Amino acid sequence: MRTSYAMLSWVGLSIGLLIGTGGRPIHGQNSRPSELLVENQEAKQTVGQPAASPVRKPAGQPSRPGSVRNIILMIGDGMGPPQLGLLEMYAHRAPNSVVPDRTPAIERMMAEGTLGLMRTEPHGVLVTDSAAAATQLATGQPAGSEMVGTNYQGNAATNLVEIAHRLGKSAGLVTDTRITHATPAGFAAHQPHRTMENEVALDYLDNQVDVLLGGGLRNWIPQAASDPTSATAMGIRQLVGDRFSFSSKRKDNRNLLLEARARYQLVFDRQMLAQVQSGRVLGLFANSEMQDALTEHALAAGDQRTQPTMVGMAAKAIALLAQNERGFFLMIEGGQIDWAGHNSDVGNLLHELLQFDDVVRYVDHWASGRDDTLLIVTADHETGSFGFSYSGSPLPRPRRLAGDVFQGRDFQPDFNFAPLAVLDKIYGQKKSYFQIFKQFDALPAKKRTAEQLLALVNEALEFDITLDDAIDILARMRNRQYAEGHRYLNTRTVPRIHDFSEFYIFGEFSRMNLLGRAVAAQQNVVWGSGTHTSTPVVLVAKGPGANRFGGMHHSTEIGQRMIELLRGE
Amino acid sequence: MRTSYAMLSWVGLSIGLLIGTGGRPIHGQNSRPSELLVENQEAKQTVGQPAASPVRKPAGQPSRPGSVRNIILMIGDGMGPPQLGLLEMYAHRAPNSVVPDRTPAIERMMAEGTLGLMRTEPHGVLVTDSAAAATQLATGQPAGSEMVGTNYQGNAATNLVEIAHRLGKSAGLVTDTRITHATPAGFAAHQPHRTMENEVALDYLDNQVDVLLGGGLRNWIPQAASDPTSATAMGIRQLVGDRFSFSSKRKDNRNLLLEARARYQLVFDRQMLAQVQSGRVLGLFANSEMQDALTEHALAAGDQRTQPTMVGMAAKAIALLAQNERGFFLMIEGGQIDWAGHNSDVGNLLHELLQFDDVVRYVDHWASGRDDTLLIVTADHETGSFGFSYSGSPLPRPRRLAGDVFQGRDFQPDFNFAPLAVLDKIYGQKKSYFQIFKQFDALPAKKRTAEQLLALVNEALEFDITLDDAIDILARMRNRQYAEGHRYLNTRTVPRIHDFSEFYIFGEFSRMNLLGRAVAAQQNVVWGSGTHTSTPVVLVAKGPGANRFGGMHHSTEIGQRMIELLRGE
Repeated sequence: MRTSYAMLSWVGLSIGLLIGTGGRPIHGQNSRPSELLVENQEAKQTVGQPAASPVRKPAGQPSRPGSVRNIILMIGDGMGPPQLGLLEMYAHRAPNSVVPDRTPAIERMMAEGTLGLMRTEPHGVLVTDSAAAATQLATGQPAGSEMVGTNYQGNAATNLVEIAHRLGKSAGLVTDTRITHATPAGFAAHQPHRTMENEVALDYLDNQVDVLLGGGLRNWIPQAASDPTSATAMGIRQLVGDRFSFSSKRKDNRNLLLEARARYQLVFDRQMLAQVQSGRVLGLFANSEMQDALTEHALAAGDQRTQPTMVGMAAKAIALLAQNERGFFLMIEGGQIDWAGHNSDVGNLLHELLQFDDVVRYVDHWASGRDDTLLIVTADHETGSFGFSYSGSPLPRPRRLAGDVFQGRDFQPDFNFAPLAVLDKIYGQKKSYFQIFKQFDALPAKKRTAEQLLALVNEALEFDITLDDAIDILARMRNRQYAEGHRYLNTRTVPRIHDFSEFYIFGEFSRMNLLGRAVAAQQNVVWGSGTHTSTPVVLVAKGPGANRFGGMHHSTEIGQRMIELLRGE
Repeated sequence: MRTSYAMLSWVGLSIGLLIGTGGRPIHGQNSRPSELLVENQEAKQTVGQPAASPVRKPAGQPSRPGSVRNIILMIGDGMGPPQLGLLEMYAHRAPNSVVPDRTPAIERMMAEGTLGLMRTEPHGVLVTDSAAAATQLATGQPAGSEMVGTNYQGNAATNLVEIAHRLGKSAGLVTDTRITHATPAGFAAHQPHRTMENEVALDYLDNQVDVLLGGGLRNWIPQAASDPTSATAMGIRQLVGDRFSFSSKRKDNRNLLLEARARYQLVFDRQMLAQVQSGRVLGLFANSEMQDALTEHALAAGDQRTQPTMVGMAAKAIALLAQNERGFFLMIEGGQIDWAGHNSDVGNLLHELLQFDDVVRYVDHWASGRDDTLLIVTADHETGSFGFSYSGSPLPRPRRLAGDVFQGRDFQPDFNFAPLAVLDKIYGQKKSYFQIFKQFDALPAKKRTAEQLLALVNEALEFDITLDDAIDILARMRNRQYAEGHRYLNTRTVPRIHDFSEFYIFGEFSRMNLLGRAVAAQQNVVWGSGTHTSTPVVLVAKGPGANRFGGMHHSTEIGQRMIELLRGE
């Protein structure tokens, strides 16, 4: 029964999609006059000044010079000061830096905008996860750990997307992870726990978020879709084509694509996204996360890629949202910066940062051409306690220097302070650690040997590991943090992390951290943790209202200020 | 012969000191009219505007409103963003925070001044040591690793102290490490390597640095002083009293105290320092480093302390330097923040940060009362790749929440996100790891057991270690980085660090890092390295010219801007 219902649905849906429903009006325009009226009244009451004129103005003209029509919030997930440092160091010091003018876009923003620092801890603890961090930014209210759009007392907290809508503005979320993942979820959903991504998807539809672009089809399709022989699966295959394989994570047979299609254009690849010219859009470009930045950069040369780039998604989101003359709120997440940090994968981390910085460059350029858009670039926390660091080997050789002070003495530092060439070698990585282990785990059991791992790693990295390293990476130990029924800590054995093992909690993923350790000395790279740290993050603001974000603030204060500015306060 | 010369010297010197030579004029005042004339001319030529009037004005009145008369540079050595985060987190979130208004002074400065970020890497490498870092700040020129006041080509680079003097201003250096240590040395000496502290002391005298306050008597006294039965040693004992024991690190029998006394008041404890009312002063309050902040804080209650506090040194330095109506340059270093980071000692790190922040509070208050002083607070690098981090144990228990979203579901995060109570326990540490191991190493050989270490640690910390932990801390391994004749890597075995061992390079000191690892999970603390990282550091500027320090800069640019401002450009 589930199947036939699904199949039936899919016939209508896929036809509608393939011919393109196009151009449905997005929130805040003429679609829902009665709602709009209410919103205008609310806006007037809240703002305490004339609401934006209901008469349509040409896009790009602010209601009031220097006031905030649009807010674009860009979050580098896990992009703490050390990660910014990696981007900076690569841009300025890599012998073959690919960064235009050797200056990251975020550094340019710092020169022209306002620099701030942000504490990120949730209620009652020192370290945040991404859900609580996003919630605090999105609502201005303190959240408990792992809560989504919920304050620490357990109540739904009004978020920036909802506030934008009440003001007649549009709202969008863009990410390279699943669109229902913790960071975007904090901005438009209310759930007790970040793992409830199926419910988050429903919240998005209830909230009518105007632009939703990212990965994560798996939380939108019926459970039955997981059986590839089912009619449901065939219906979805018709729609998604061979772009990517899928299976469902839902526990029901609700087909959220079907539920969405009355109000959304549904797109699944970059060509379909390119065709959207106006209206609401739900773009799901992968079953789970989108491709990592290493893959995006590798594919950029050719034309085989089906997924849009991060810049492509950001550009389309802005183009659509900016059609609402009342303005918009847009959150763009570089979500895999965090994942590279969790995995001690510095090569992928660098590429993720470069990718995110390219988006900053695009968005900053767009916003700089107008005086009505506040752009904020920040992070939700630091991941990995990462750093370049100096070591005891190999020791530098003595060198002669011409200068007066060195007559009679060679220049020979006591330690290895990290040659600049490591930056190019880090950039030269061909595959993320995640992809390496995905490939390894896909091998038949008897081929999953240290020798095979060695070959895979040394093919992908410009830093060689030895067979002993590979053996160490595959070594196991008793899980001292074993917890029955726990989502992550439920295995009796785990990869063998010697020191700080309590901070490596993601089971088999810790093999990636061991790979990170194996090449650490060659890279002059250190990692303190497999999770997050509470190190304050950098925030840059540019545009109207930017001066409210200088100095040190807590993320709830940043959220409050964004809300005030969006309201015209 | 060496002895009798030394004894002879000491008789005159100690008499002169004990009765107090007091009030010798300091640089830029009336002592050296011919030099001053030259300096005035230079100042005129360089500045391109009228030099400060030679007529004495009441202190506190600037030559020109809003121009920079004084620059005070405060360097938290190793105080990267994670260390600032520790201070912030303790101030705001510790249940029993001792920070006034729960707001660090440096945070207040951020709200009122200009916030910047600084890259710190020296020439040709990614990670800096403190000498190259200080050199770049002090001279605006790129330095090689471990160089002191020397650019990367090996030439002496003019520093802020010399520039101040040329302008008729006074100059001072204050630190809680040895006054000849890397950071202060970079501001007033020119040597090929930071270890040449004996030569640095001579450079200070040549440069006539007006105020020198810190530890490190050992580089100023003749080699013969190391023999406690020598007349030289007796002479020095007469002077220093029982305040601290001493031995020399000099390779000659030059007595720099004797050489200094014609121009400096020499002081060795806080009472002597208090008596200095004007003129040049050389204060050496310990044979090597001064007491750590834990000790300063413990002694603050009683009146047994002989050393001045950091605030006391800063206050006296400012009081003396501000008597020069042409103004001054002062560098104040919180040097043991770095050491606590090297030692993975979070309790001492917190106390060092609180101590430094108290100095910031004092200096900011002083500078805020005038409009002629630029105050810059920053760091030279990050140390330790430190962070609070979340772990897999102990797991939080489920809790009921009243809020709507949690009806039918308990609040139970998946991980240990670090309870706030760890902050108070960290603050409650009684002794630094360095002092614990000093005590341990002073035991007779057969008493240096794991049991004894266990007792010492558990007496000093509010986090308990087990006997197994103590055994692990004392375990050894082959030194894989052994290097014959190397200053640090010359032992065949070292304490057994499993992971990232290449970054633990200070021999027996690594036992402290192992202690840090043993309590890490209880503290929710991680450490990535035993050395420094290249993470950009925070910079806060307040006062005239502060707006030149916003955004991201390299340390050489910061140095150049300070030089420009000091010159009135």
